[in-house]
Amino acid sequence: MSKGEETKTAILDHAAKLASQIGLEGLSIGKLAEDMSLSKSGVFAHFQSKETLQIETLQFARGLFVEKVITPAFKQPRGLPRVRALFDAWLEWNAHGFPGGCLMIAASTEFDDRPGPVRDVLAQTQRDLVETLTHAARIAVQEGHLRADVKPEQFAFEEYGIILSFHHHLRLLADPKARARAQAAFAALVERSTQSN
Amino acid sequence: MSKGEETKTAILDHAAKLASQIGLEGLSIGKLAEDMSLSKSGVFAHFQSKETLQIETLQFARGLFVEKVITPAFKQPRGLPRVRALFDAWLEWNAHGFPGGCLMIAASTEFDDRPGPVRDVLAQTQRDLVETLTHAARIAVQEGHLRADVKPEQFAFEEYGIILSFHHHLRLLADPKARARAQAAFAALVERSTQSN
Repeated sequence: MSKGEETKTAILDHAAKLASQIGLEGLSIGKLAEDMSLSKSGVFAHFQSKETLQIETLQFARGLFVEKVITPAFKQPRGLPRVRALFDAWLEWNAHGFPGGCLMIAASTEFDDRPGPVRDVLAQTQRDLVETLTHAARIAVQEGHLRADVKPEQFAFEEYGIILSFHHHLRLLADPKARARAQAAFAALVERSTQSN
Repeated sequence: MSKGEETKTAILDHAAKLASQIGLEGLSIGKLAEDMSLSKSGVFAHFQSKETLQIETLQFARGLFVEKVITPAFKQPRGLPRVRALFDAWLEWNAHGFPGGCLMIAASTEFDDRPGPVRDVLAQTQRDLVETLTHAARIAVQEGHLRADVKPEQFAFEEYGIILSFHHHLRLLADPKARARAQAAFAALVERSTQSN
């Protein structure tokens, strides 16, 4: 990485952490410059606009998520081991990925009513994630690890719900049992999807 | 209601709708005054501070939720009929309660990292809701409608996840199958909780 790229990555790393706490709308070139002791014009040169900054922050967070959650999980054997690894790594990410919880979950409620390029990037990221979960579940059906009548899209929808409930119980309610409940819910989903009818 | 109370209710009604779209932090006394063609000092007289405005908006939304979701559901017979009515009304609320989706869900990710009175009111509201869901499930166990080994807290955690996944799929992803998936997920949760082992 060039010095310029290094600086840009450091800015994005800070921006993603900050946005997980105060929201994507809370980001500003001025605030990032101040936090990182850079000149405002220096930060501006990297992003040009708040919107570009928001989009690049989402893309940076997405890259981290792929690196920490998706890639390791997809190194696991096809089928149920991979489905489980994906859930476990995703849960871990929600608990410890960013100081303010999952940036994407926060950005989702922030931007679902704000049409424009930021929302488009966010929605595409989330669609890709749902597709990845669905794909992993579909392989588990093909491998015979999940029952043939399990609908991969429905499995992914329910898996997503468990993660969202975990995030809600952990972050807002500070529920010490949040993780155990999420793990029990996922175990029940898997059990229901493997049991013979 | 006095004229003053009527005006205050109208302001809170607008504030709740607006906050569901742009977030609680987006609310301001100035913006509400402008939207409703009132004087800024008139709106200020009702709330005094942005924080009070945010708290009263949450309490107003909570009141509506109780009126539209909790009260009608608790008129249903004890046990599973009430559990089902609660879920159905809650789903409806998420789809149509406010123009920007559920205010509480949006506020949850917005305020989970902002300690203070707004977060406290929000967290208490959500704890009460989780307790209400848990209570309804517990009665269903007592009535013998759900299996004796069903844990009401776990049932409520999973039910909450289905609603959150519905909200996410509907609002951000505009998934036309969101409702059907949520209903199927809830049906599966109930079935798993009623089946004999």
